[in-house]
Amino acid sequence: MTRVEDLDTPALVVDLDIMGANLRRVQDYCSSHGLGLRPHTKTHKSIGIARRQLALGAVGLTVAKTGEAEVMLGAEPRDLLVAYPVVGDAKVRRLASLAAIGGSACKLTVSVDSLECGQRLSDAAVAAKVQLGILSEVDVGLNRVGVSASDAVAFSKLVAAMPSLEWRGFAFYPGHIKSQDPEKIAALSRTVGGLRAEFEAAGMTPEIVSGGSTPALYHSHEVEGLTEIRPGTYVYNDLNTVFGGGCELGDCAAYVLATVVSTSRPGQMIIDGGSKTFSSDKLSSGGPGHGRVMEAPGALFHKMNEEHGFVDLSGVERGFRVGEKVRVIPNHVCVVMNLHEYVYGVRNGVVEEVWRVDARGKLQ
Amino acid sequence: MTRVEDLDTPALVVDLDIMGANLRRVQDYCSSHGLGLRPHTKTHKSIGIARRQLALGAVGLTVAKTGEAEVMLGAEPRDLLVAYPVVGDAKVRRLASLAAIGGSACKLTVSVDSLECGQRLSDAAVAAKVQLGILSEVDVGLNRVGVSASDAVAFSKLVAAMPSLEWRGFAFYPGHIKSQDPEKIAALSRTVGGLRAEFEAAGMTPEIVSGGSTPALYHSHEVEGLTEIRPGTYVYNDLNTVFGGGCELGDCAAYVLATVVSTSRPGQMIIDGGSKTFSSDKLSSGGPGHGRVMEAPGALFHKMNEEHGFVDLSGVERGFRVGEKVRVIPNHVCVVMNLHEYVYGVRNGVVEEVWRVDARGKLQ
Repeated sequence: MTRVEDLDTPALVVDLDIMGANLRRVQDYCSSHGLGLRPHTKTHKSIGIARRQLALGAVGLTVAKTGEAEVMLGAEPRDLLVAYPVVGDAKVRRLASLAAIGGSACKLTVSVDSLECGQRLSDAAVAAKVQLGILSEVDVGLNRVGVSASDAVAFSKLVAAMPSLEWRGFAFYPGHIKSQDPEKIAALSRTVGGLRAEFEAAGMTPEIVSGGSTPALYHSHEVEGLTEIRPGTYVYNDLNTVFGGGCELGDCAAYVLATVVSTSRPGQMIIDGGSKTFSSDKLSSGGPGHGRVMEAPGALFHKMNEEHGFVDLSGVERGFRVGEKVRVIPNHVCVVMNLHEYVYGVRNGVVEEVWRVDARGKLQ
Repeated sequence: MTRVEDLDTPALVVDLDIMGANLRRVQDYCSSHGLGLRPHTKTHKSIGIARRQLALGAVGLTVAKTGEAEVMLGAEPRDLLVAYPVVGDAKVRRLASLAAIGGSACKLTVSVDSLECGQRLSDAAVAAKVQLGILSEVDVGLNRVGVSASDAVAFSKLVAAMPSLEWRGFAFYPGHIKSQDPEKIAALSRTVGGLRAEFEAAGMTPEIVSGGSTPALYHSHEVEGLTEIRPGTYVYNDLNTVFGGGCELGDCAAYVLATVVSTSRPGQMIIDGGSKTFSSDKLSSGGPGHGRVMEAPGALFHKMNEEHGFVDLSGVERGFRVGEKVRVIPNHVCVVMNLHEYVYGVRNGVVEEVWRVDARGKLQ
């Protein structure tokens, strides 16, 4: 039996009870509102966690990269969405092969926002003798990817007519909307509902209207015409989710277990993780710090080198000694997960499971 | 024959001619000044590159983590320094095992800055029946780890007396000194020279006085009493090295090849790499941007999501189309390297070699 405090560090630890509650809470929310849940696997990148999400009732999975799709086929989803503009000969060929491998067991769908993308996918699907599902990616205000709402129907008609592509609906990512923005959510609902009506008027009833992110997750049912959401972070949560109003601190399932390796400077401790362990992602709220040290909430984890974390203890009553271990909840768990080879699943202080971050570094 | 523009993206590419010149330049500098070069392998994390450094004349290798030491033994160095306070039962046991594996072929040395560290290493070395080399880590102003210069001799006497430890000298990391700081370099020289004299007066002549980083590399010979330096970044260089005055832009050997995946918003392009490809490390100069787009020097790579890079093209004359590939020199190559599985070595536009980032994610 390995207790969590006996793990070598830095170690990425997940509290299994908190994770389980997070998974159930969001699935229950979706089920009670008739929304499909298609978790974005970019957060956990692990086949085993994807299987749990599917077992709880997820309608499918989401990935960003073709390499992630290749990995996540291992979770045996019935429906897999690549929510990213897939560009490049090698990638479209790989995707078409995946569609062939998945066969009738897994429907593969890609979101597109350019005719070039659509044409290349169509060519590859024709060559591989497969059908690829397509969602039109629409920009609803994030200003990242996606055609404008006013162009969406005309664009979709052109893509839908391309050989071996099956148009299934439209997708958007409302990453600019936080839970505290009721007016923005109302505006989003008008945009999405209006768009859906426009598609219907054009004789293209969308099977899928896919949106949703973790920050404004529990307002998804207020968006007219939405059929499914694609949150990722909710499985573990992090400080960004807490400060964005999406959860409480006690809902954060993942933390980095770190060891104090130097206290040579008074009022400071150095822990054995820096930017290669925590990433350099700042809080999206703009606040200071690289994570919350649970053993010393008044401490400020203010600076990092690659393997050194600098924690200012001037606001802390207790002292720390070399060798002591601390738990640090990260700012942004998705990028932290991508830095670690293994995750240690813990219940009541005991390590019950160890799993790989299967799609770590699958950038292509 | 694969040409670089045919690589799938995002891909981490190294220009072999530039890398070769970087490796030779620093080795030549060290040789001409009678300084040992002990490259820090945290930058490349690849056994093959470490072998090249040793073949050119490096006296040994440096690592930060025990897991990196385990990997880098594969490069067959005669002398391997773990420049990090090694804390924790599992790690000291692993290090002692490594010393046993390395045997007489590889001398293993660890830098220590606390008596606790020293005692645990001594216990493990005794148990494994090996000798471990020890360097006293001294803080010369970075305020990170290391005993103070005034405590260094007294501390070293205590550590040197511990069983199965062999005291070899002292180490420091002048990471706070840039090349444009002649007064700080002069002050460092006085500190190091004075410390060396103090050790000699105490009957402890250091075999090794180890310092040096990439930014102030070419001033290392001005530091009195220094026997070796441990730069890492010089193998590839990056924008931080350029802006820190350590090299020219043309000396940057590594870049990320990325593809334009969306141009749906005028004056902007989205490339297929974000914080999981480039890391979120900002420029240490405080300037804006996440990398320099070589095809459009006036472009500002101003924002990232995990897999999306936002490039503002408003200051650029030329346009970009979906599918076009661009080369991006990163801010901080060490953290970028750690995010990629493979590196593509290119000469005259042709891919000559592909190598693994062997110690990627070896955090423990």
